[in-house]
Amino acid sequence: MDMRKHVEVCFTPGEYEYFKDEYDIVVVIDVLRATSAICAAFDHGIKSIIPVATIDEAREYQKKGYLVGAERKGQIVEGFDFGNSPYSYMKEALKGKDVVLSTTNGTKALSIASEADTVVVGSLLNLNALCEWLAKQDKNVLCLCSGWQDKFNLEDTICAGAISDYLIKTGDFRSNEDSSIAAKYLYLSAWDNPLGYLKSSSHRRRLKNLNLNEDVKYCLTPNTSTSIPILKDGKLTKL
Amino acid sequence: MDMRKHVEVCFTPGEYEYFKDEYDIVVVIDVLRATSAICAAFDHGIKSIIPVATIDEAREYQKKGYLVGAERKGQIVEGFDFGNSPYSYMKEALKGKDVVLSTTNGTKALSIASEADTVVVGSLLNLNALCEWLAKQDKNVLCLCSGWQDKFNLEDTICAGAISDYLIKTGDFRSNEDSSIAAKYLYLSAWDNPLGYLKSSSHRRRLKNLNLNEDVKYCLTPNTSTSIPILKDGKLTKL
Repeated sequence: MDMRKHVEVCFTPGEYEYFKDEYDIVVVIDVLRATSAICAAFDHGIKSIIPVATIDEAREYQKKGYLVGAERKGQIVEGFDFGNSPYSYMKEALKGKDVVLSTTNGTKALSIASEADTVVVGSLLNLNALCEWLAKQDKNVLCLCSGWQDKFNLEDTICAGAISDYLIKTGDFRSNEDSSIAAKYLYLSAWDNPLGYLKSSSHRRRLKNLNLNEDVKYCLTPNTSTSIPILKDGKLTKL
Repeated sequence: MDMRKHVEVCFTPGEYEYFKDEYDIVVVIDVLRATSAICAAFDHGIKSIIPVATIDEAREYQKKGYLVGAERKGQIVEGFDFGNSPYSYMKEALKGKDVVLSTTNGTKALSIASEADTVVVGSLLNLNALCEWLAKQDKNVLCLCSGWQDKFNLEDTICAGAISDYLIKTGDFRSNEDSSIAAKYLYLSAWDNPLGYLKSSSHRRRLKNLNLNEDVKYCLTPNTSTSIPILKDGKLTKL
């Protein structure tokens, strides 16, 4: 009998219903840019992040005096303090603070996954740190890609493929789903040059149009962070 | 302004809602085995195929005296004449007949796509014939993969990637969606050896367990058919 744990990849939040309840650990991934920004925030001393799915919830927290970030379609939502640029979270004023965040895709995926035993945040930034931790847990792992407006996206899938490849190489994990196999293939063909590979990606093109080239470069640079954000009682803290 | 037509790939019937109404032609793909069997059927002289989504509908047709095939989870449903093995459709007794078919994934996808202007059936068998025809239509094309129980599968995606690659090379088509870009990459890395590439694919493994190796080989051999099945008023006929 094959005793290896599963590491599988779910491409979109919409497909999560076909995967849920079978995995102890869910890794939520939104490379451009929510989960990268969350890692950057913990690298820079933010105390906690409360992810909320809707703008209404974000406004409620704002009324209570929280610092609140909100992004939709790549732009900061009017009336909020910041969006999901990682650079927004590197400011002295945010150190030690509890921050609220709502984004187009990433916080929606976090909300959908929140019932799982353990929910952590993955990005290219914390790739190795996260994989080392996952390898030690001896639990089934599902990588949940946030996608773009409910559709598949390349950069989240490549990040999920990188996590799968790492865990499979330990010898303690295996992948059964076709989505996991495809993610690994896409990662292996992309890895030498993720920026080049993703140049035709639709999401990246959108960000370029918004003049967010610096954000894209930052988010696609692997292993600059050792933060592993973990969701507990609706709040992300650093593990 | 870019005047090229779109060729895009939708990985699963569940995601079709995010794509529909934007494409004049939908190509429904279920390589293992429904759309391969449908091509084989027209190659062997079947007059028409009525695809139905549910077993109940299939039984209704059976009561009316139709020859009815029904497959669920790779097996022929009890009480029906055949399943979705291409070899079932090569029999003398079916020539010139109207046949009804219900399968786990393929006929569900046909049913979901049925409101589109033009719905045709794609497989590796009729790949070149279909692509030559699509190239002449000057219309936006969506490849709708049937998936496996609402999840992504590799063989449908590779077939969709092959169609996209062909159409893009004509110079008259482009792909914008990340799913389309991924499908093309997966196709390009798989094409030299689709059987080898798919050996780890979950669906193929399932069929192997059911001793359907001959079916798999048949379905993964490209360009053995020139049939282009087209859906009109709920009935597939040969174009």
